[in-house]
Amino acid sequence: MTRMTNANDAGSAVSGAGSNGGRNLSDAAIVARVDAGTLSTVIDALSALVTECRLEFDDDGLSVIATDPAVVASVSVDLAAGAFETYDGANGTFGLDVERLGTIVGLADRDRPVTLAVDAGTRHLHVGIGELRYEMGLLDPETIRSPPDPTELRFEYGGGAVLPSATVDRFVGATDLVANHLSIALADEALRIEADGDVDAVSLEFEATDLQAFTPGEARSLYSLEYLRDMSRAIPGDAAVDLRIGTETPISLGFEIADGDGSVEYVLSPRIARE
Amino acid sequence: MTRMTNANDAGSAVSGAGSNGGRNLSDAAIVARVDAGTLSTVIDALSALVTECRLEFDDDGLSVIATDPAVVASVSVDLAAGAFETYDGANGTFGLDVERLGTIVGLADRDRPVTLAVDAGTRHLHVGIGELRYEMGLLDPETIRSPPDPTELRFEYGGGAVLPSATVDRFVGATDLVANHLSIALADEALRIEADGDVDAVSLEFEATDLQAFTPGEARSLYSLEYLRDMSRAIPGDAAVDLRIGTETPISLGFEIADGDGSVEYVLSPRIARE
Amino acid sequence: MTRMTNANDAGSAVSGAGSNGGRNLSDAAIVARVDAGTLSTVIDALSALVTECRLEFDDDGLSVIATDPAVVASVSVDLAAGAFETYDGANGTFGLDVERLGTIVGLADRDRPVTLAVDAGTRHLHVGIGELRYEMGLLDPETIRSPPDPTELRFEYGGGAVLPSATVDRFVGATDLVANHLSIALADEALRIEADGDVDAVSLEFEATDLQAFTPGEARSLYSLEYLRDMSRAIPGDAAVDLRIGTETPISLGFEIADGDGSVEYVLSPRIARE
Repeated sequence: MTRMTNANDAGSAVSGAGSNGGRNLSDAAIVARVDAGTLSTVIDALSALVTECRLEFDDDGLSVIATDPAVVASVSVDLAAGAFETYDGANGTFGLDVERLGTIVGLADRDRPVTLAVDAGTRHLHVGIGELRYEMGLLDPETIRSPPDPTELRFEYGGGAVLPSATVDRFVGATDLVANHLSIALADEALRIEADGDVDAVSLEFEATDLQAFTPGEARSLYSLEYLRDMSRAIPGDAAVDLRIGTETPISLGFEIADGDGSVEYVLSPRIARE
Repeated sequence: MTRMTNANDAGSAVSGAGSNGGRNLSDAAIVARVDAGTLSTVIDALSALVTECRLEFDDDGLSVIATDPAVVASVSVDLAAGAFETYDGANGTFGLDVERLGTIVGLADRDRPVTLAVDAGTRHLHVGIGELRYEMGLLDPETIRSPPDPTELRFEYGGGAVLPSATVDRFVGATDLVANHLSIALADEALRIEADGDVDAVSLEFEATDLQAFTPGEARSLYSLEYLRDMSRAIPGDAAVDLRIGTETPISLGFEIADGDGSVEYVLSPRIARE
Repeated sequence: MTRMTNANDAGSAVSGAGSNGGRNLSDAAIVARVDAGTLSTVIDALSALVTECRLEFDDDGLSVIATDPAVVASVSVDLAAGAFETYDGANGTFGLDVERLGTIVGLADRDRPVTLAVDAGTRHLHVGIGELRYEMGLLDPETIRSPPDPTELRFEYGGGAVLPSATVDRFVGATDLVANHLSIALADEALRIEADGDVDAVSLEFEATDLQAFTPGEARSLYSLEYLRDMSRAIPGDAAVDLRIGTETPISLGFEIADGDGSVEYVLSPRIARE
């Protein structure tokens, strides 16, 4: 097994050595370096929906689109080359065990740089954090569920609002007390959330003037709380969430990451209400 | 189902509206407003013994008396009208799911006001916390175990002491290591706690001079640790606990809440010691 | 059952009294007083390997040597008389339920003094923490697994390093992700840790210049992660760990406690690598 051993690696090139046989990674397909906090945010965003995904690297940076097993929700992540400390990228598609990489990156402080080097030949991802080298097997992208075509994820939304992530946490947490789905609607000058249980009911009304932005429109749909709960947990605490909805259409929840050098968008299909 | 929808409600009146049909709550039996911290303290005090109880509202405020299912302990809570920010009360008795209300109030920061409006007609409690409206079904008071007559809860105590809640936590925690019951006794100038296990034994002696108050007297009784543990958890960290005991009599643990505008008293029957 | 009841005991003598019959402990075999933090460190060190052990008291202080049930690892603890606030010791060997004493000491703040009085006659350990008296049954030392002869724990080590306890936590945590054993080796000017899983591999290389001390030498052995994980949890956060290894020999992890008035040493046998 190849091991990465040069503890002094501080730049973009990870060179192999060590008693068990080395392998020069100058022929690694991709070498990139990014702070652990940004990488964790990306991993958390993906983990809300999937356990494995396809990483797409090109000259512009990293992008991932993935759909949950039930094909009810999707997540799109873009991380521009500018979000990386160094980005020495070639084109390539690799299959990633998302949870495994999350555990490794979790060993690092959030502001610590993490070096990622993809060895396309051995299909391994080399993760370097300070004196730590982790060699992780990659998955065959062909064995991973195909992501949707991005054009299929563009919907006509009736309107929307921009709100703090804490507000999303709040309406998800409150409606979760009574039901496993909730309705999100745009009223004249307010965003309105409702959930009905067998006995109890919850509603929350956020006035347009209390929101960071508000686009009125015709919109009311029912969504699964389970998905929204997982998504809300993955949204960073300081994010402004761009929420877009229509009537019986998907909802889109978007937010910036990496100080604007990256973005995440969740799209969740509506549930059909039984009247 | 009726829903409360006016997010701008800042006073004592909660008016109903909304797409699903509204209902004016000016005919609500009771409308009261109190900070979440005080309400949580009351709910925690009740939850130590019961999962449901009867709320009694009258001109003076709110009172609750409840007995645990084994009828070994009781809790009495009084919250004077002055403890409320606004109190627009009529007389009435309602059955409450204590745990459910606790979960809802747990969504609010402790210093945030919570509006309670009882709709006697639909038997619903409307809970308002900021932009959140929770409509909660009330229980039929007739289905709830009858509370004891308050006069039955007045006992002759041999003496007692006033001590910080941390001291109660301490003797409960220490004796819990060896047994499931403990003896509480007044010595000449000390409060003395003892518990005997099969092999180990614990005793704690609090000198009168180290206590906030001490009333000497003949007193020694054995109590169940399980009840005292639940009670000690519900006593606020800054409370001064008024402990009264006798010989083979109940123990009373009382403390003020709401800056003195309310009070809680636990009464726990003794266990009969097998000699 | 004898109980300790004098809440005013502030010195080294614990005198017995109380309604249930007292017993003067001036004839206790050992009376010692030490801060809860030091005692907790000792207990944690022992608890990593054993649930019961033999305490050896003599004029110089307290010493314990114990071996885990599988006889794979041992722990030696020395606490000099100077580590105690007061130490009024006679010679004696007593069997201790380590976990039980840990729970009791856990009731005290770390800087609070704890009084230990061994009553050899009744075979009880009396633990005093402020107003709390805990009377704990001791075990018959003959029923406890014999500790190894200290001379058997002296090995020839090829070299070693001194490193912060956080570094031990780090390599244990990282290698734990992929395997249940790890190899520790001395390279020319570095300490090198490796673990191989079925698919993934981890390595960490700590340069001599980044360590608190480094003694080069021929050394490479394989160890069980389970033991190292338990040991790393018991090492205080601020300890400098003296690590010594050889080739297919035990590893020794030593650190000072009680500001240098005490020490702990773990010795762990190597696993035989299957090549």
